[in-house]
Amino acid sequence: MSSTFPPAPSDKKELEASGAFTPKFDAHGLVTAVITDIKDGELLMVAHMNAQALTLTLETGIAHYYSRSRDKIWKKGETSGNLQTVQEIRVDCDQDAIWLKVSVAGHDATCHTGRRSCFYRTVSLQDGKAVTTITDDTRHFDPEETYGSQPGKE
Amino acid sequence: MSSTFPPAPSDKKELEASGAFTPKFDAHGLVTAVITDIKDGELLMVAHMNAQALTLTLETGIAHYYSRSRDKIWKKGETSGNLQTVQEIRVDCDQDAIWLKVSVAGHDATCHTGRRSCFYRTVSLQDGKAVTTITDDTRHFDPEETYGSQPGKE
Repeated sequence: MSSTFPPAPSDKKELEASGAFTPKFDAHGLVTAVITDIKDGELLMVAHMNAQALTLTLETGIAHYYSRSRDKIWKKGETSGNLQTVQEIRVDCDQDAIWLKVSVAGHDATCHTGRRSCFYRTVSLQDGKAVTTITDDTRHFDPEETYGSQPGKE
Repeated sequence: MSSTFPPAPSDKKELEASGAFTPKFDAHGLVTAVITDIKDGELLMVAHMNAQALTLTLETGIAHYYSRSRDKIWKKGETSGNLQTVQEIRVDCDQDAIWLKVSVAGHDATCHTGRRSCFYRTVSLQDGKAVTTITDDTRHFDPEETYGSQPGKE
């Protein structure tokens, strides 16, 4: 397949029905991707995909994203071994968000901090201020050992 | 609490630890919100929140978003009765995405089409083309009856 997708139909009912996949990219050419673990539904991460990342994901069955910080295609897990095999792809009503249900290889971890999920903290109000509290501090790998001096997320 | 949040710490380790909630709003003043059902973890919708929506959500325990199409605060379910009571809020490693675990009132439905989840379609390749297929077509309410002539999502 090519890396382009057809334009969204102007008819809203058609956009919301079965038929052509017409992802609605934002001004930066991106759609939001929500990634959950197929085995128990845990939310692992949120990322962004451009048309090329979406095409690579559809064609290879391995999750590819677009790294905004590094401005390039990002094959998740290429360094850490924590590749994501896509078991199912869903799209929402207005086709501007994608849901990937994946199996995670390697350390069974997705966060660059070594934790299973990027969402390892809760947010709550304490004395009128919003604070974060770590609820999962289990590290499945050592980020420094895995990434060395490479910055940021992988 | 006020509708402002402290700036993100410049130290990445601090940003990723317990402490101040410092949501990283994008150029439009928004963070991505992922909403799942507390009862079984089903992904219900993806939306956006500005500082005011986040503050209202924290203070009231009822999910508020920012509607980009209507350019205003959106108390989800105000028309349909499908209000979302927030049971837990999580934030990801770089604090640019929020996860709300909610209980849905009313029809136990979140999508404006009447379905439980906005993600009612799968995406797959067929003859080299990406197509969508409806996997959940159960309508929990009649959108026309509920919204009348009101356009778009609610």
